[in-house]
Amino acid sequence: MSTPFFQVEKSLSDCNARAGKIVTDHSEILTPVFMPVGTQGTVKAIYQKTLETMPANIILGNTYHLYLRPGTDVIRDFGGLHKFMNWKNSILTDSGGYQVFSLKDLRKLTEEGAHFASHLDGSKHLFSPEKVCEIQRIIGSDIMMVLDECMEYPITMESALRSLELSEKWAKRSRKAFLETEPLYGHRQFQFGIGQGSVYPELRKMYAEKLVEIGFEGYAIGGLAVGEPAKMMYDMIDITNEILPKDKPRYLMGVGTPENILEAIERGVDMFDCVMPTRNARNGQLFTTYGKVNIRNAKYKYSHQLIDENIDSYASRNFTLGYLRHLMNTDEILGLMIASEHNIAFYLWLAKTAREKIISGEYRLWKSEMLERFKNEAE
Amino acid sequence: MSTPFFQVEKSLSDCNARAGKIVTDHSEILTPVFMPVGTQGTVKAIYQKTLETMPANIILGNTYHLYLRPGTDVIRDFGGLHKFMNWKNSILTDSGGYQVFSLKDLRKLTEEGAHFASHLDGSKHLFSPEKVCEIQRIIGSDIMMVLDECMEYPITMESALRSLELSEKWAKRSRKAFLETEPLYGHRQFQFGIGQGSVYPELRKMYAEKLVEIGFEGYAIGGLAVGEPAKMMYDMIDITNEILPKDKPRYLMGVGTPENILEAIERGVDMFDCVMPTRNARNGQLFTTYGKVNIRNAKYKYSHQLIDENIDSYASRNFTLGYLRHLMNTDEILGLMIASEHNIAFYLWLAKTAREKIISGEYRLWKSEMLERFKNEAE
Repeated sequence: MSTPFFQVEKSLSDCNARAGKIVTDHSEILTPVFMPVGTQGTVKAIYQKTLETMPANIILGNTYHLYLRPGTDVIRDFGGLHKFMNWKNSILTDSGGYQVFSLKDLRKLTEEGAHFASHLDGSKHLFSPEKVCEIQRIIGSDIMMVLDECMEYPITMESALRSLELSEKWAKRSRKAFLETEPLYGHRQFQFGIGQGSVYPELRKMYAEKLVEIGFEGYAIGGLAVGEPAKMMYDMIDITNEILPKDKPRYLMGVGTPENILEAIERGVDMFDCVMPTRNARNGQLFTTYGKVNIRNAKYKYSHQLIDENIDSYASRNFTLGYLRHLMNTDEILGLMIASEHNIAFYLWLAKTAREKIISGEYRLWKSEMLERFKNEAE
Repeated sequence: MSTPFFQVEKSLSDCNARAGKIVTDHSEILTPVFMPVGTQGTVKAIYQKTLETMPANIILGNTYHLYLRPGTDVIRDFGGLHKFMNWKNSILTDSGGYQVFSLKDLRKLTEEGAHFASHLDGSKHLFSPEKVCEIQRIIGSDIMMVLDECMEYPITMESALRSLELSEKWAKRSRKAFLETEPLYGHRQFQFGIGQGSVYPELRKMYAEKLVEIGFEGYAIGGLAVGEPAKMMYDMIDITNEILPKDKPRYLMGVGTPENILEAIERGVDMFDCVMPTRNARNGQLFTTYGKVNIRNAKYKYSHQLIDENIDSYASRNFTLGYLRHLMNTDEILGLMIASEHNIAFYLWLAKTAREKIISGEYRLWKSEMLERFKNEAE
C-alpha cells in the first residue's frame, strides 16, 4: 500500500487548527507549511542548498513566468524544473491565471481560455485549462493548480456568479485534462482546485461544494487578501473550510502577514505561500521573533544585536543589525541575501512552531503571544 | 620566537616565480595568492562563510568607501572591520588614494594631502598620509597601504618625477605615522609601500630603491594596468622586482586577467587583487578552466554542462550553463550569486594551482598550457 498523499496527524478541539503530512515523490511536507515563492525558477537571492537545509520542503514556481522564460522547450529539454534548477524537494506551480489577469489591457477572456500578449515582447498566447495542465506536466511540478478566473475586488454578486460559472467549466476541463494525461518524468503529480466567490458567503459555499464534487487531491482558497478587510478574509476561510473535506490539504493562496497565517492556521488551513518575506526583505523590512525591523532606520546604525538568534539560519545568527543596515544603505547584494534568507527562515520557523504547538495542544495560547509580539516595531 | 610575517618556501631557477607564506594574527596566507575585493565590507554577492570555506584567506577592503560609509565611528564602535562584517581571516586595505584621484573635479592636491568632496553628499575631507594611517588603524586591517599619488597615463617624465617626489614625502610620513601609532584591537598590523614610476624604467627603479630604504613589511607595484600595453607592464614588474628585497612579499595592485596574473607570478609577484572576477560575473562573463564563457550567448540556452567541474565550489558544480543563462536573462539575484562565487573560486584556484606547480617545478609548462586555454571563448 502506498503512502497517502495527505494525512491529518492531529486536530485540535478548541479550534480548527490541524497538523498533517503531505508526501510527494520528492519530499515529505509537514503541515502547516510555508512555501517560499520561486517565481522564475529561483527563490530570489537564496541558494537552493540553503533552502534545502532550512529545510524548505516545497517551493512555488510560476507557470506564466516559466512558460515565457526559459520556455517549455528548455524546461522539457532539461527533464523538468526540478532538474533545471537543481531542486531536490517538492514544487507547486500556480496556473499562471493570476499573472494573465493582472495584464489587464493585454488580455481577453473567452470560454476557450485567456488570450494574452506577453509583457516581454508582445507575442500572442492562449492559456486554456488544457494548455495550463500541459505546461505544468512539462514543468513537472508535484502539485499543479487549475486555471480559474481571478475576480476583481470589489465585484457585484451578479458578476461574481457569472465568473464562477466560467471557473466551474474550466475546473472540470482542467480535471479532465489532468486525468487523461500522464506525468512526463516518472514522478507523480497532484492537482488542486481553487475556491473562489469573492466575499459572498453563499457563493464561496456553493462553489466549494462544486469543486468537491469534481474532486481534487487538494483545495486552495483563492481570491483573498486582495483589499478586503482581514475579518472578511477570515470569515471566507471559515465558510470554505466547513465545506472542504477534512482528509484533503487546504491551501490559502498568496497570504500573507505572519498574523494572517496564524489566524488562518487556527481556521484549518495547511499550506501558505507569499512573496512578502522575500519582497519585504529587499525593501529592508525584517520579520523577527521580537517584532518588525525596518533596517534603514537610523536607530540601528550602531546596533550590535544579531538579526535573530531564535531563528536557525546562517543569515539570522551571524550578522548584526548594524552591519545589515550598512549593506542595505550601500545597495550591496549581500544585504538582499541576508535579509531574504532571514525572512524566509522566519516564515518557515513560524509554520514549524505552529505545528509543534498544535501537536502539544498549546496553539491558541502561543498564537496570542505571537500576535502581541508582531504588533510593534522592535525596540 | 614568533613566526615571521613572510617566508619564501620555494624559488624557481628557470624563472622568478616563488611560493611563500604570509602569516598574520588572523590567518596563514599561502602565496601566490588572489585577494577578492570587498570594497564596502562585503565581497559582492558572496557570503563570508562561502569565502572562508573556499578558502579565501585574505580579502580587500577599501579605505575611501569605508571611511564614508559606514564611517570610522561605526567601525570603531564595532571593534574594527573584522568584527563588523564577521570575517575571521585577514584583511588588506588600500589607502583610498586611488578613489580620491578618480574624483577628478572633486579633489585638490597639496603637499599636506588630498582634499576632496564626498561623491555621496559633497562633504569636504582631507586624506593626508597620517589620516589614512589613522583610518586603517580604526579599520584594523592586517595589511595597510601608504597614501601615494596616482599618476595619469600617459604622463611626461617630468611630471612623473614631480609626482614621485610628493609620493616619497608621503611614504616617509606614512611610515612615521605607522611607527608612532599602535594597533587598536590587539592584533598586529603591517604596512606596505607602493612602487610608482609610470612606464619609465629609470623612475620605477629609482623609486623602488627609495621605498626599500624607507623600509616596509611588504611592497606593492602600483600604477599599472591603466592602459599601457601588457608587455610594458611586465617589463615594469621585472624592473621593480629586481630591486625589491627577496624576503618581502610583492603585491601587484588591481591586476588583472588570468593571463596577467600568470605572467606576473612568473616575474616574482606574490599577491594580487582585482575587481574583474566579481564585476565581470555581474556582466555575465565567466572565467573557467576551459575558456571564457559569455553566458548570455544563445548557444548556452540548452547547455546541460555544469559551470566548471574542475573548480571546487558549490556554484561551479551544481548549476548548468543553461540554468545560469536563464537567471541572468531574467535579472535574478541568484544569477549574480552563482557567477560571482564561481569566478572568485576560479581565481583562487588559479593562484593555488600556480603555487602547486611552482613547488613541483612545473610552473612554466603549466602556464603555457593555461594561456592557450584562456585565449578563446569556450566551445
